[in-house]
Amino acid sequence: MSTDNMIPAPKGAPIHFGPFVVTSQVFYQTALTIALVNLKPILPGHVLVSPRRVVPRIHDLTPAETSDLFQTVRRVGRMIERVYDASSLNVAVQDGADAGQSVPHVHAHVIPRRRLDLPTTDAVYELLDGDEGDLRRAFGVLRDDGTEERRRSRFPAVDDGERTPREMEEMEDEAARLAREMEGEPVD
Amino acid sequence: MSTDNMIPAPKGAPIHFGPFVVTSQVFYQTALTIALVNLKPILPGHVLVSPRRVVPRIHDLTPAETSDLFQTVRRVGRMIERVYDASSLNVAVQDGADAGQSVPHVHAHVIPRRRLDLPTTDAVYELLDGDEGDLRRAFGVLRDDGTEERRRSRFPAVDDGERTPREMEEMEDEAARLAREMEGEPVD
Repeated sequence: MSTDNMIPAPKGAPIHFGPFVVTSQVFYQTALTIALVNLKPILPGHVLVSPRRVVPRIHDLTPAETSDLFQTVRRVGRMIERVYDASSLNVAVQDGADAGQSVPHVHAHVIPRRRLDLPTTDAVYELLDGDEGDLRRAFGVLRDDGTEERRRSRFPAVDDGERTPREMEEMEDEAARLAREMEGEPVD
Repeated sequence: MSTDNMIPAPKGAPIHFGPFVVTSQVFYQTALTIALVNLKPILPGHVLVSPRRVVPRIHDLTPAETSDLFQTVRRVGRMIERVYDASSLNVAVQDGADAGQSVPHVHAHVIPRRRLDLPTTDAVYELLDGDEGDLRRAFGVLRDDGTEERRRSRFPAVDDGERTPREMEEMEDEAARLAREMEGEPVD
């Protein structure tokens, strides 16, 4: 990979995820790619990796963006697997509305997995496509009023109760922690 | 991407997917990556993209392999979306056993999607992690005796009946057809 890709954007420039400004949730960035914590993680350590450019589909990416995006998935995945003491990762891209994409901005879900962390291995996908994975709604809720919204989970077994969007402070703390972890992560 | 990556391996060299020889199912290859048709596609056009080198995890890949793998996912995805008249794609990597990986060889599922093609959008993931997505079993059945094995589907609604592994001839026909389609596909 070109070292040019590793130069972060100017400090203070707002960073977008689809229509939302997510600057303080971003914990890692290259010239072409951002990695951000999630408002409603399906499991601890569930993060998103997106191209910096707001385009809806993988086929809209340049080859350089495609390469950098998935190099970043690999790098960030290695970090979250270590930090969250996981043994595996789910990597999923819902590329288009008919594949379940909720925010029209390419994003890879990277989800650390441990043995028996969910009632079934595939429950992660049910959550991803359920209310829990609705990023548009999740980020939209936060943007509009900054408060939590309680609603019924389709999968209460996961955490024995209703799940709520996280507070901004909690997300910023996690982003700061993951940013420190990325500092020690090899580029390759 | 280096043009070196576009040079196919010598004709006749056997190609492996995990422990299985899949030479005749491969419809596209670069020096580092292969794309193959699937014994038990979840939906028409469901294909797999793997690094040529047999390693289990994304973190085992070199940066060049990572880049080439996902450039190939992009290229092959664009082709199957066109050929299967789809509107979206699911791209999923089960990276490790605890994420549902059944064959310990990195592979991205690339699945063309159309509106209302399944009872729910997320049914694709349920199928991916169910018996239908068990590539080890599917390819193993084919390798051991070359015959079909009928068994009960967890999701009979998808095709109103039991699903069976495909005949080798059908897979080879599809691989030949997709190979021709890839000839006209731009590299970038």
